[in-house]
Amino acid sequence: ARPKVGYFYTGKPHANLLAQSVKNTKVRDIMSLPTVVTEDMSVYNAIVTMFLEDTGSIYVVAKEGLAGVVSRKDFLKNAIGGVDINKVPVAMIMTRMPNIATVYPEESILEAAEKITSHEVDSLPVVEKVMIDHKAKLKVIGKISKSNITRLFVELCKE
Amino acid sequence: ARPKVGYFYTGKPHANLLAQSVKNTKVRDIMSLPTVVTEDMSVYNAIVTMFLEDTGSIYVVAKEGLAGVVSRKDFLKNAIGGVDINKVPVAMIMTRMPNIATVYPEESILEAAEKITSHEVDSLPVVEKVMIDHKAKLKVIGKISKSNITRLFVELCKE
Repeated sequence: ARPKVGYFYTGKPHANLLAQSVKNTKVRDIMSLPTVVTEDMSVYNAIVTMFLEDTGSIYVVAKEGLAGVVSRKDFLKNAIGGVDINKVPVAMIMTRMPNIATVYPEESILEAAEKITSHEVDSLPVVEKVMIDHKAKLKVIGKISKSNITRLFVELCKE
Repeated sequence: ARPKVGYFYTGKPHANLLAQSVKNTKVRDIMSLPTVVTEDMSVYNAIVTMFLEDTGSIYVVAKEGLAGVVSRKDFLKNAIGGVDINKVPVAMIMTRMPNIATVYPEESILEAAEKITSHEVDSLPVVEKVMIDHKAKLKVIGKISKSNITRLFVELCKE
């Protein structure tokens, strides 16, 4: 076998250089616009909003702070589960804080991808800490999904 | 600026080496088990199967050949759309061949990721060509989803 020599070819060159490239890509650089609704919207209208925006998860906000997340899976479970989706508000079926995995805009895209994988979610709300009525709230400013990661993957490999 | 010299440091080292690494990873290496149902299963039972298998899309087969694909989005649209999901068979709502994006096990994972992105789907059935009753059919042997891509992304970057 040919001896492996040189600074860049350490035996794991792909991984190390890729890691560097990905660590330099921040959540802010590739995040999408979030779809946000209020707590009192009916489940039916929230589903319609999801289709209109062609997104896989929506974020529920109250007094400007993140209150919950609802995925297509949550909606489907409730739509077939006998819930009156015209009357029940989205707040009744959402996953609530503090059980929501979130990410900050300055985190690396690798950290975001790890959270998506370990929490087994389709997307993460991108949030900023803000003070509202003397309380710390999370303001939703974006969304990172498996679609964003897959697109970045393709772009990095094709460049 | 320091002159860029050497075989590996061409100015785009991340991209080129990553591309190489990803091109060496085949669909077969990271595909998941597919969830497969028959055409006559009711939409309701197909949804239940989807939840039991905790998957985002299921593949519909007829006489061993791939006939259709149904996603969580398709199910949700029909569940709220007045369809009697207990009576209607999954064949009525599925996306049919030849309108299904598929991938072969020996294709690279980059090709799979590109198809997922360009066709805007959550997953691709991994198929093999087989002859059944003197007709060429596609046998479903796996599944590649955005989740597989996201996990690979994390693994490659962390190694």
